Amino acid sequence: MSVQNSNSQQHMQTAAASAAPTIATSAVLLIKGYDFDNGIDYNALLGSYLTTGFQATNFGRAIEIINHMRAWRLSDEPLAEGASETDESDLAYRSTVKCKIFLGYTSNLVSSGIRETIKYLVKHSFVDVLVSTAGGIEEDFIKCLAPTYLGDFDLKGRDLRSKGLNRTDWVMPILDQMLVEQREQGIVWTPSKVIRRLGKEINNPESIYYWAYKNNIPAYCPAITDGSLGDMLYFHSFRNPGLIIDVVQDIRAVNSEAVFAKKTGMIILGGGLIKHHICNANLMRNGADFAVYINTAQEFDGSDAGARPDEAVSWGKIKVDAESVKVYADVSLVFPLLVAQTFARGD
Amino acid sequence: MSVQNSNSQQHMQTAAASAAPTIATSAVLLIKGYDFDNGIDYNALLGSYLTTGFQATNFGRAIEIINHMRAWRLSDEPLAEGASETDESDLAYRSTVKCKIFLGYTSNLVSSGIRETIKYLVKHSFVDVLVSTAGGIEEDFIKCLAPTYLGDFDLKGRDLRSKGLNRTDWVMPILDQMLVEQREQGIVWTPSKVIRRLGKEINNPESIYYWAYKNNIPAYCPAITDGSLGDMLYFHSFRNPGLIIDVVQDIRAVNSEAVFAKKTGMIILGGGLIKHHICNANLMRNGADFAVYINTAQEFDGSDAGARPDEAVSWGKIKVDAESVKVYADVSLVFPLLVAQTFARGD
Amino acid sequence: MSVQNSNSQQHMQTAAASAAPTIATSAVLLIKGYDFDNGIDYNALLGSYLTTGFQATNFGRAIEIINHMRAWRLSDEPLAEGASETDESDLAYRSTVKCKIFLGYTSNLVSSGIRETIKYLVKHSFVDVLVSTAGGIEEDFIKCLAPTYLGDFDLKGRDLRSKGLNRTDWVMPILDQMLVEQREQGIVWTPSKVIRRLGKEINNPESIYYWAYKNNIPAYCPAITDGSLGDMLYFHSFRNPGLIIDVVQDIRAVNSEAVFAKKTGMIILGGGLIKHHICNANLMRNGADFAVYINTAQEFDGSDAGARPDEAVSWGKIKVDAESVKVYADVSLVFPLLVAQTFARGD
Amino acid sequence: MSVQNSNSQQHMQTAAASAAPTIATSAVLLIKGYDFDNGIDYNALLGSYLTTGFQATNFGRAIEIINHMRAWRLSDEPLAEGASETDESDLAYRSTVKCKIFLGYTSNLVSSGIRETIKYLVKHSFVDVLVSTAGGIEEDFIKCLAPTYLGDFDLKGRDLRSKGLNRTDWVMPILDQMLVEQREQGIVWTPSKVIRRLGKEINNPESIYYWAYKNNIPAYCPAITDGSLGDMLYFHSFRNPGLIIDVVQDIRAVNSEAVFAKKTGMIILGGGLIKHHICNANLMRNGADFAVYINTAQEFDGSDAGARPDEAVSWGKIKVDAESVKVYADVSLVFPLLVAQTFARGD
Repeated sequence: MSVQNSNSQQHMQTAAASAAPTIATSAVLLIKGYDFDNGIDYNALLGSYLTTGFQATNFGRAIEIINHMRAWRLSDEPLAEGASETDESDLAYRSTVKCKIFLGYTSNLVSSGIRETIKYLVKHSFVDVLVSTAGGIEEDFIKCLAPTYLGDFDLKGRDLRSKGLNRTDWVMPILDQMLVEQREQGIVWTPSKVIRRLGKEINNPESIYYWAYKNNIPAYCPAITDGSLGDMLYFHSFRNPGLIIDVVQDIRAVNSEAVFAKKTGMIILGGGLIKHHICNANLMRNGADFAVYINTAQEFDGSDAGARPDEAVSWGKIKVDAESVKVYADVSLVFPLLVAQTFARGD
Repeated sequence: MSVQNSNSQQHMQTAAASAAPTIATSAVLLIKGYDFDNGIDYNALLGSYLTTGFQATNFGRAIEIINHMRAWRLSDEPLAEGASETDESDLAYRSTVKCKIFLGYTSNLVSSGIRETIKYLVKHSFVDVLVSTAGGIEEDFIKCLAPTYLGDFDLKGRDLRSKGLNRTDWVMPILDQMLVEQREQGIVWTPSKVIRRLGKEINNPESIYYWAYKNNIPAYCPAITDGSLGDMLYFHSFRNPGLIIDVVQDIRAVNSEAVFAKKTGMIILGGGLIKHHICNANLMRNGADFAVYINTAQEFDGSDAGARPDEAVSWGKIKVDAESVKVYADVSLVFPLLVAQTFARGD
Repeated sequence: MSVQNSNSQQHMQTAAASAAPTIATSAVLLIKGYDFDNGIDYNALLGSYLTTGFQATNFGRAIEIINHMRAWRLSDEPLAEGASETDESDLAYRSTVKCKIFLGYTSNLVSSGIRETIKYLVKHSFVDVLVSTAGGIEEDFIKCLAPTYLGDFDLKGRDLRSKGLNRTDWVMPILDQMLVEQREQGIVWTPSKVIRRLGKEINNPESIYYWAYKNNIPAYCPAITDGSLGDMLYFHSFRNPGLIIDVVQDIRAVNSEAVFAKKTGMIILGGGLIKHHICNANLMRNGADFAVYINTAQEFDGSDAGARPDEAVSWGKIKVDAESVKVYADVSLVFPLLVAQTFARGD
Repeated sequence: MSVQNSNSQQHMQTAAASAAPTIATSAVLLIKGYDFDNGIDYNALLGSYLTTGFQATNFGRAIEIINHMRAWRLSDEPLAEGASETDESDLAYRSTVKCKIFLGYTSNLVSSGIRETIKYLVKHSFVDVLVSTAGGIEEDFIKCLAPTYLGDFDLKGRDLRSKGLNRTDWVMPILDQMLVEQREQGIVWTPSKVIRRLGKEINNPESIYYWAYKNNIPAYCPAITDGSLGDMLYFHSFRNPGLIIDVVQDIRAVNSEAVFAKKTGMIILGGGLIKHHICNANLMRNGADFAVYINTAQEFDGSDAGARPDEAVSWGKIKVDAESVKVYADVSLVFPLLVAQTFARGD
């Protein structure tokens, strides 16, 4: 019988298997795509992805998992053995405790139009902890200072662009002031404190970090110096030396976010540092309860970027009974649709 | 200034550049994603992909290109120099001549729920020529003979499955009859004739090739023996030897499809043989006029699967002034949405 | 503990696990790379790859597996239960029966300098069955007719190149003569017969197919029309119509190669049609005994190209107790070194 | 003429074009692989890679570029206009000034046997600046504290492993002592100072960072907290709070390495943070003079990991007239061979 069929069918099983919690049910799901003779019903079309196979099925699983993250309340859990719900106020409290959602994203996504989707999630406090790279922080501010065009970036464009972050001398005075506060008030600055301060200063509702500041959502960036902001700190270290940015307090803070949460979910867009950092924090609590990865990295070279959820499970970054999926895709193609089927529904 | 920003922005330019015909306009397109504060408007959301960057922008370009393929009529073209439109009937004729659309797809897509989308396109004669692999032919028939489940394909499943194509002894009697016709009527069978015959015999509106038969849409498969049908031909060659399947007539036929068309478009889902075969036919006419590739292959190893449209242009498979784009994605994630924004709109 | 370490170590396990037959021993292999303080000993350096991890370990496994293919003799196997080795001549016969080795390769490899490595293997009858694509056949002849330079292929080069196969009117007269033989001698041509004839006619020791002809090594190419030769057949079908190339006899032949072998090994360079075709033939014998894949394809989109050996095992293309490995690499980087550590050693 | 040939040949051109400085010569290089009928001469075999095509050609270019990095001396450069070499001592000085070589690597490589190759380069001061991730630092120490086996990492192995870095209570007392020095001597710790201290304390010639300490080679790690060491710092912040690790001084230091060098070369193994960080430092000097990337990342999703050298050129990370190449490969397969053909030759 057809080897080729066999192969692709085998792969279907693999796709389903990576969505372990529903394997029992998926065994009886007929592979069936959308029937356009029923007209264009986007909601039904995206619903059909679950039974379409390959990454469409994984996308369907990602919708399910994020909706489970959103719906979870502590009151859904059985009380610990021996415990009793003593009164109404306790139950009321427990029904307000939600899953803590970590959102990680690489810098290219903030450069792209995915920035608007991230900003929406932060503006409405749909996520609880942000982790990004240096570029994922500074590009948000650069966009506030000057608009970005698809065709803007030719060779000559670089010179114009290179003035982006320091445009209107925006960053340097803030660094000067931070140094004053360090000296006068004994503030020990950390990457997350710097980001919060910049979010306050930018004072622009287009900005992710403006809303993070407004909504008290911490944004972590362990390698804050690795980019344009690092260049500014480099120049500042000659012009007005002495500013210290400490990373020890931030690892304490991000790990504590995970350790003291009742339930955690991870939504990780892209690979590398941001993926590793969120997983590492969740390892401190013996694993996240929900995990959605979207990236294009492969596993054959042993890179962390390509590591799948099932490997994360075996090492305690994701709980054994967690729901998890990896969607192999460029984030720009799937994340807006994923938000449309989850957070944006308001249900 | 931020190298990381620089990089991702540079990539944006690259993405835009690969959509050459709109580079002039994209230069002034602001990078901007969808704003969910406007509610969930799927059409607007997918429209925003064009300015989102990376593969989302390429997806937006693919929508534009397919809609251009669909809209083109010979009457849109200027008359050749010196020619004059002699009468109304000539103009009427010219406004009926459409772009000939070649659709190629690999076997895994027929195994998946993408089969229903392909069937829809064939049922409504939205495409003109099909090219697939052996698995992309036989899996369609196997699905008619027995349903396929997501979780159906465990190790034991193989034995059941291996009986798929020959179930109820479907293929062998047809091969016997074809041999009779070869001997008695002098028919020289080719892969496309075999597929047409099977499409007639299956007589099932769920089948792609049933509709191809009904609508006189040729389906080419140069390596027809490379799969389950080949296994049947292998067994048949012992049981009832003598059947001949000639590939020379089919290369003449598929090349002629391209050579005698006024305008051609290529929609190629996946890589390998099917991609090469459609491009090769279009090389015979000095290039296709429109091209949309969707696949995940890379170019660094010199594989044809990973070759980009701009390389195809330089070798005459795509015309220099053609519109073309490659979307780097698993087809299952994007093709139904692409059809929703193009063929299914009926405009 | 370090999540990142964990990950990469976990990946090491994965790499080892994919080389199942040695998992027991690899459990006690210390991860250790080459020590250049011992000087440059290429043989020792390549030997250290087995304990280096990731694809280096898979490369080390590929060396082992190919050397096992080469060394196997039927006399190594236990006699079937109840059978007895009746005399010396039977043992002598059994010690001459070798593993039948299938070598598959994509066309880009024949365009590259890997062609010389393949020619070496065919010239010395180190492999038994060849499978390639149309380009993998014709490019070998084109190179005999005109040399190929690294920088030869600019845009203007195409016109020169396009005359390659028909240069000095080489192919057309052969096709004419084949048609004569079809009519006068009743020969039913197949792709493998055409390739054999061209290998005879080229009469050039630089050619892979010259040596295949000389050494009676069959070369299969189920999609022979998909390229330059197809173009020639297209033109020939107008100029001198009637030539038939039958694919049924070839599927019978290639499957029989596998079915009647005592032991089989597969060395598959690249993906797509050639990989599927060799696996399909070995499925007919319930699986190959040894398998080495080298390609860069991934499995997430359900493509056959990306399917791993363990999936092939579950479907009967590779035996359960077979030795198999996939090396994720561009073939040009690793295949010459692999031949240096195996076939070229002459031991 | 053959589209498939065309494609692969076109790709050859692409491969050559990415090695721009030799395009003129490569135009006349015949594509030719190694001839094993000349016996197994590893040096000649690896030499033939330059004319083999695809990634083999890129590997051949990488050998050339690294050998150019090694050979460069300031005395090779023309004197600035108007300047004159005043005396012998000036020339003598100029012939001692070498290219400053930045080596970056991801953590998985330190987990693998590539660690031994990196240690060799550092032990012999063949490279000048190291950049890695947290895992690329701590895994080196963990390996000193306990050996690592290929098959060691099953699920139960995790618990054993998780004690790795803190084994024999190695790290905590060092952190305690560092806090004492911070308080008593006013030391402001940075990641590179911490790594240097750990390299001194490990006192083990198997360690990369032991040799970095001995040879005064700085090792930068902007995200030092992102792993096992971060976990230790997290626990330490509760047990003995107050330790500060400042990242501002380190960005000043790494950028200054590039800015004050006469010539720089980058050898970057893997992607993500380490690649970006080295490029960013070299952007500060308007580009590196030599660059070799080895990784498997792709560019289609706009990730920095996948950005090619030519993009780095357009943004000033690599000089316009620099020699640069990207080899698409798992580092484990090619880096030991690359060192064998360059640094280990001692010429």
